[in-house]
Amino acid sequence: MQNFDYMTPTRLIFGKGAVDKLADAIRPYGKRVLLAYGGGSIKKSGLYDKVKALLADCELFELSGIQPNPKYDPSVLDGVRICKEQKIDIVLAVGGGSVLDCCKAIAAGAKYDGDVWDLVIGAKPTMDALPVADILTLAATGSEYDSFAVISRTETNDKVGYCSPKVYPVFSILDPELTFTVSKKQTAAGCADAMNHVIEQYFAADTTLLNDGFCESMLKSLMENARACLANPEDYRARAEMMLACTYGCNGILSLGNSPSGWPCHAMEHALSAYYDITHGEGLAIITPPWMRHILSEKTLPRFVKYGVNVFGIDAALPPREIAEKAIQATHDFFASIGIPMTLRAVGIDESRIDEMAHHVAETAGLENAWVPLTEADIAAIFRASL
Amino acid sequence: MQNFDYMTPTRLIFGKGAVDKLADAIRPYGKRVLLAYGGGSIKKSGLYDKVKALLADCELFELSGIQPNPKYDPSVLDGVRICKEQKIDIVLAVGGGSVLDCCKAIAAGAKYDGDVWDLVIGAKPTMDALPVADILTLAATGSEYDSFAVISRTETNDKVGYCSPKVYPVFSILDPELTFTVSKKQTAAGCADAMNHVIEQYFAADTTLLNDGFCESMLKSLMENARACLANPEDYRARAEMMLACTYGCNGILSLGNSPSGWPCHAMEHALSAYYDITHGEGLAIITPPWMRHILSEKTLPRFVKYGVNVFGIDAALPPREIAEKAIQATHDFFASIGIPMTLRAVGIDESRIDEMAHHVAETAGLENAWVPLTEADIAAIFRASL
Repeated sequence: MQNFDYMTPTRLIFGKGAVDKLADAIRPYGKRVLLAYGGGSIKKSGLYDKVKALLADCELFELSGIQPNPKYDPSVLDGVRICKEQKIDIVLAVGGGSVLDCCKAIAAGAKYDGDVWDLVIGAKPTMDALPVADILTLAATGSEYDSFAVISRTETNDKVGYCSPKVYPVFSILDPELTFTVSKKQTAAGCADAMNHVIEQYFAADTTLLNDGFCESMLKSLMENARACLANPEDYRARAEMMLACTYGCNGILSLGNSPSGWPCHAMEHALSAYYDITHGEGLAIITPPWMRHILSEKTLPRFVKYGVNVFGIDAALPPREIAEKAIQATHDFFASIGIPMTLRAVGIDESRIDEMAHHVAETAGLENAWVPLTEADIAAIFRASL
Repeated sequence: MQNFDYMTPTRLIFGKGAVDKLADAIRPYGKRVLLAYGGGSIKKSGLYDKVKALLADCELFELSGIQPNPKYDPSVLDGVRICKEQKIDIVLAVGGGSVLDCCKAIAAGAKYDGDVWDLVIGAKPTMDALPVADILTLAATGSEYDSFAVISRTETNDKVGYCSPKVYPVFSILDPELTFTVSKKQTAAGCADAMNHVIEQYFAADTTLLNDGFCESMLKSLMENARACLANPEDYRARAEMMLACTYGCNGILSLGNSPSGWPCHAMEHALSAYYDITHGEGLAIITPPWMRHILSEKTLPRFVKYGVNVFGIDAALPPREIAEKAIQATHDFFASIGIPMTLRAVGIDESRIDEMAHHVAETAGLENAWVPLTEADIAAIFRASL
């Protein structure tokens, strides 16, 4: 078991009507609020008006149009500029993980005088940040309970992970009813994103019985509840459990003491969505089974056997290799069953830039240190197997 | 699924050599430190000298002799007095859950001008507290990661639960090697304490697939690792996983969104250890199986079946009642197998004060609102069945 130093100070305000606690929750942080959101679905749903009414005592400044795979330019830069010009006290993200990720980078940039990109790529340390909070409208990324953000820079095809303990949300408001209107496509992609977060932590050299059990429980819960959400988008229990499960995805609590895995599927998917701007969760679902097939070996076999038996209920009496192969197929089949297009071609990616993407990943992601190390050739082979 | 408002801001500094991070961790909080500990085992082990050396830059004031089932008078009152007289900046507990619980009450009392007992019983709100931190030497209570403390007042046989978000430890240093010297008796009692924390949350009316899985994983991990710790007290992996698992016991993360259970075994055990000063974990282990037998009914049967199948691997094809009875017996047998004396008489408790204790619990613990409501007669019956 590895040493660790862990903290997640975020307050989770969870449940029906949780948004009503917004004014009380935000009060300690100040009155000048950057209200950040995406493409306007919060206006259609009425959430935008509700937030404005609840924060009638505050002075609101708006940043809208934050896109999926949030962009450094213009979103982060615009947000930083508003925070500095308007002396913002707190950044409030209303939306999904992309909006929140963007707000984390904004909050850090607002307290930094140099080139904000240096913070994002970790070339400079984040010494301070404005408080960030969120009202989540999508169950997926876990950004509401972690210190990470993924920011894309279009002109260089960079999609980089930013991390600082300064940007844990001070509170996250999680009302499952806000996810009733999430489309089937986004519900499935959110489930796949969260499942891959778990898989990235479960497949590691050195794990514990405890973490393995937590991860297996997460996967079973996510699969069962995703199915229920798709069958009935207004199934409160299913939406609620889905939302809570997604929350644990990336803050580390599922793998405290585990050896690092390298998060290889995320590294590879970040290239796909940087080059092609595809939906992150779909990209992950597509490459996860080919990655699994690629790394299956005598050495990794026991992990796949445990996964197959405990997550998919595959008969433990079968030959180990057969269990592993069934488990990988079951992973693929589950994603397909919730409607995810399971090939790269189906999301508009062809062979043409595979070598370029593989090179980019190999140069930047450190996958030579992953649980099963991946070379540029390995990465290209996994991409090709995903076509 | 129930609404909740959850936060655990404590930093966990975990692993071999974690104590070496003490000076850095404590620095932001100040230099005037109340060093609190128990009966002197930390002097024998060398930890006391190590802490003093690491904090050579600080001014240390000591409170020693804190007992298991920590006492309001003299420990809490003495600690509060020292904090006020010496203008203490931070309270550092070095020891097990009892030392830490005592320190939480001290930290709150140090910032309060009235009768500290009013804070402890919740008659007055805790508006502020000194920061509390700890170096844990025993895996059991979970106090290192929660906002609770249990304080005993001898003259009134009160053992009350104190709770305030102001007393989450600011950091908890968890070095599994510090638990190598924990006796077999205390290792077993710690395991039973932690297992009962899980059981208290698992047996509830409204739970989630996710929480059930987390709880089942906790119980399996605790049992396997307790056995390994008893077989080899210096098994680092087992001590480490045990320590981490215990940490999750009481901060609520195992039951977010569950309906409240009322924690009936804790309520009953608090009377036992208030009247007889027995080891808390042993008291819990003794009364848990009789409590289970007492509440087993057609209504509660499905929960016991799930528990038996998923935690003890009992054949799901057996008749449900048989699974439940086997599960309860397996619970008893596990506790017995790790050396816990499994009757009240074996820990020096006879029939003489059962009715008095049952009356005390019924008057103070609110068990009429437990998952399965318990009357004074029920409580007395469970005590008698535990003799």
